[in-house]
Amino acid sequence: MEVNLIAIELLLLFRTVYKHRTNPTMSKELSTRADNYSQWYQDLVVKADLAENSAVRGCMVIKPYGYAIWEKMQATLDKMFKDTGHVNAYFPLFIPKSFFSKEASHVEGFAKECAVVTHYRLKNGENGEIIVDPEAKLEEELIVRPTSETIIWNTYRGWIESYRDLPLLINQWANVVRWEMRTRLFLRTAEFLWQEGHTAHATAEEAVEETRRMLDVYAEFAEKTLAIPVVKGTKTANERFAGALDTYCIEAMMQDGKALQAGTSHFLGQNFAKAFDVKFMSKEGKQEFVWATSWGVSTRLMGALVMAHSDDQGLVLPPKLAPIQVVIVPIFKNEEQLSGITVVVDKIIAELKSKGITVKYDNRDTHKPGWKFAEYELKGIPVRIAIGPRDLENGTVEVARRDTKEKSVMQITDLAVKVEHLLDQIQTNIYSKALDYRETHTYKADSYEEFKKLLDQGGFVLAHWDGTTETELKIKEETKATIRCIPLNNKQEEGKCIHSGKPSTQRVIFARAY
Amino acid sequence: MEVNLIAIELLLLFRTVYKHRTNPTMSKELSTRADNYSQWYQDLVVKADLAENSAVRGCMVIKPYGYAIWEKMQATLDKMFKDTGHVNAYFPLFIPKSFFSKEASHVEGFAKECAVVTHYRLKNGENGEIIVDPEAKLEEELIVRPTSETIIWNTYRGWIESYRDLPLLINQWANVVRWEMRTRLFLRTAEFLWQEGHTAHATAEEAVEETRRMLDVYAEFAEKTLAIPVVKGTKTANERFAGALDTYCIEAMMQDGKALQAGTSHFLGQNFAKAFDVKFMSKEGKQEFVWATSWGVSTRLMGALVMAHSDDQGLVLPPKLAPIQVVIVPIFKNEEQLSGITVVVDKIIAELKSKGITVKYDNRDTHKPGWKFAEYELKGIPVRIAIGPRDLENGTVEVARRDTKEKSVMQITDLAVKVEHLLDQIQTNIYSKALDYRETHTYKADSYEEFKKLLDQGGFVLAHWDGTTETELKIKEETKATIRCIPLNNKQEEGKCIHSGKPSTQRVIFARAY
Repeated sequence: MEVNLIAIELLLLFRTVYKHRTNPTMSKELSTRADNYSQWYQDLVVKADLAENSAVRGCMVIKPYGYAIWEKMQATLDKMFKDTGHVNAYFPLFIPKSFFSKEASHVEGFAKECAVVTHYRLKNGENGEIIVDPEAKLEEELIVRPTSETIIWNTYRGWIESYRDLPLLINQWANVVRWEMRTRLFLRTAEFLWQEGHTAHATAEEAVEETRRMLDVYAEFAEKTLAIPVVKGTKTANERFAGALDTYCIEAMMQDGKALQAGTSHFLGQNFAKAFDVKFMSKEGKQEFVWATSWGVSTRLMGALVMAHSDDQGLVLPPKLAPIQVVIVPIFKNEEQLSGITVVVDKIIAELKSKGITVKYDNRDTHKPGWKFAEYELKGIPVRIAIGPRDLENGTVEVARRDTKEKSVMQITDLAVKVEHLLDQIQTNIYSKALDYRETHTYKADSYEEFKKLLDQGGFVLAHWDGTTETELKIKEETKATIRCIPLNNKQEEGKCIHSGKPSTQRVIFARAY
Repeated sequence: MEVNLIAIELLLLFRTVYKHRTNPTMSKELSTRADNYSQWYQDLVVKADLAENSAVRGCMVIKPYGYAIWEKMQATLDKMFKDTGHVNAYFPLFIPKSFFSKEASHVEGFAKECAVVTHYRLKNGENGEIIVDPEAKLEEELIVRPTSETIIWNTYRGWIESYRDLPLLINQWANVVRWEMRTRLFLRTAEFLWQEGHTAHATAEEAVEETRRMLDVYAEFAEKTLAIPVVKGTKTANERFAGALDTYCIEAMMQDGKALQAGTSHFLGQNFAKAFDVKFMSKEGKQEFVWATSWGVSTRLMGALVMAHSDDQGLVLPPKLAPIQVVIVPIFKNEEQLSGITVVVDKIIAELKSKGITVKYDNRDTHKPGWKFAEYELKGIPVRIAIGPRDLENGTVEVARRDTKEKSVMQITDLAVKVEHLLDQIQTNIYSKALDYRETHTYKADSYEEFKKLLDQGGFVLAHWDGTTETELKIKEETKATIRCIPLNNKQEEGKCIHSGKPSTQRVIFARAY
């Protein structure tokens, strides 16, 4: 394989030139993280075929490769939801405008920037163009759901009569729309895909327990599947979901040190039950308002996945979410060599598949190995196997892992077992790397000057805060940093607020955030 | 078990009374199919917890039990799509108004009755009420997608450069909105869920092949999974999809003899490629317009499923779509008896599960066996197993199948094998019954009088037609019957049009339809 390896190295050396010539999708190099993190992210999402902007302002197209990753996230989460007793259902896309007025704080948070349907018909105008038919005006405008608490609780009124109907543990997979002014693929788009759980309980305790259970589900999903370490905590009153008594969240750190809220779980108290008059007959025969939770994660997680792990060569996907876990690239000069290689590869594929590993064999003769190597690096395939004529003689293959870019020669005989093990190692390593990054970018600040300096370096800053929204907002205005969360089981210690100097009992996590 | 059985029979006898007292969801009896087929359908969909109308006109809530069936349909179809080389993606919910003008016939068919987004913000009015902010008017109105050809072909322009990019085989699972005036749960709703495939090809032949392939996928799904026999055919020019050169369909017959279009697959020619300027470089180096197909099925299939198989006692679900395939009901007088039964049941459950059978053990002591029997009949659970103390002594259980309501006593020892076999039998029997119904309700008419008489009886009427839209529309106006399809490989025979008397070469299928 030496000759081929040299050829490949040469190809890799000239990759820039090569890309320009042959692959329109790679006609521009990726920006680097160091040069321009934001541009690097946007480039990567587009070039790796995850998503692109559409003709509709703020709405994205999720491309097949990106959607395949999202499907894996959905499948994993859906199973976790079902294992914890939840079922799926589907509620209307549209919400009558008046529903938003029913829960006072909810309307402030959600009914402002949203898509409003006012008409239900188009017609031909005088010059043959298409116009909105002024006679087809809706009596009450409909809002494209930004979140579904109102329409769901209006429905629950008909479903809940007694304590026997509780708990009601329902999840919905859906699209939602929030008319964001500044959008960014996956991270903030006008339309996005998500799941929203909406549960109903007989007691506050049960509802809080559910809120925490789902936070744990999200944290486990983030760490085990996305390979992203998260801090579990509660939001401050100011950062709470509109209509919630308490918002729990998981916060992740991206590679530029910024925070990203990866999931939220809300204890809604009886607010929505009161707004929509949802009562139940308790065991004691009394009519009581129902207790509520809601919780959600969205396609935003796709953005988190990209920003947490990827590098200047492209995506780095955790094996559990990679649509293709292993790619096999044959190194050949003619049909005869390819045939010989394919015989061996077919056996390897069968063995990998029997272990549930997804594998792609790229035997195209239209692209050179170097091109393929670069392409699969860009796409974040966790393991690449190269095999040439010399390998056949030796009974070996070259195995390259995407995360560390290490290469090693492996015997074909027990390859499947080793690859399976390697995929586990990669999953663990990606997580460890992200955890290590977070730990080395988490600081303590004891003065406002120090605080601001640390923020500029990027990362989480643990600092004392006097507990008031006033101070929180001042700090936000002056530094663009928000309180990401008050960690669960937070260490209690005496201190002084970095801004007001007033007494404080604990540090909270500040960061600039997506 | 005799005593218990008598008790059950008594309970069943008094079921009407019993239901009124204890189960709010069954507080009204179902209508019967004979009395009022339409009302029976509406009642059943609601009482069996499949779906209900929402607060938003024409939009439904798909309840967890209904959604679980839809999820099984989705999983089966999704696998069939992937096995035929398709991948999923996601395109925006909104479509700029101007897109609809680009394909002339498409706009006539789709851009009329639709939800139009005109504004993107609400604000507080003078009296504290919420109003649409007149300053937040969109420059160009957005249409909530009624189907996605336009936005997708606008996107494909950026994805297709050469023949190497073809075929593009993409499917989308999504919600769509068509502002229907008269709605009916699942069958015709303003918002519904569906999948829409949109493929791009280098040649007309390949596109037609794809259109036919997906028609076959739909037919196989209908017959093997839904257990509904279908006729494959092409639509007349008048019934074609707006923008298609040819529309293929599968047509099913419901238990009132009416037809239901269960799926369509369209050959779109180069219409959308021309409208959105999507060209590719052919192998010969020429710039050519791309050839297109689209194909879809929707939550309408839920309606077909209910109407094709169910009876006056409730749903009859084919085992392949039943969220619960087997329910086990213990017959007991006290805790001790229940414990004894549960020990045996646990083993049965383990064996059933090991065969991939989904099973529910309803050991609640809050409901009597008779109530449970009626409930699971209503829900269409294919197999019910009852087990009491006497059964334990005999090593037997009572097995009842939902489709024929036959009961038999079975040995516990090889129960799982027998139940597995029984589920297959039920799947086959439900299909055979529907096929038998269709065959006995398919007629030939050779005069217009005979034609009208047969239509009133309900069913498919095979009749000669002169091939003109004019005649087709007259027949529709006079009889409310439409040409459902021209069956594939239709027998060619000489005849005279039943309406115009003009010569005809084949019979087509007429029916009244949903």
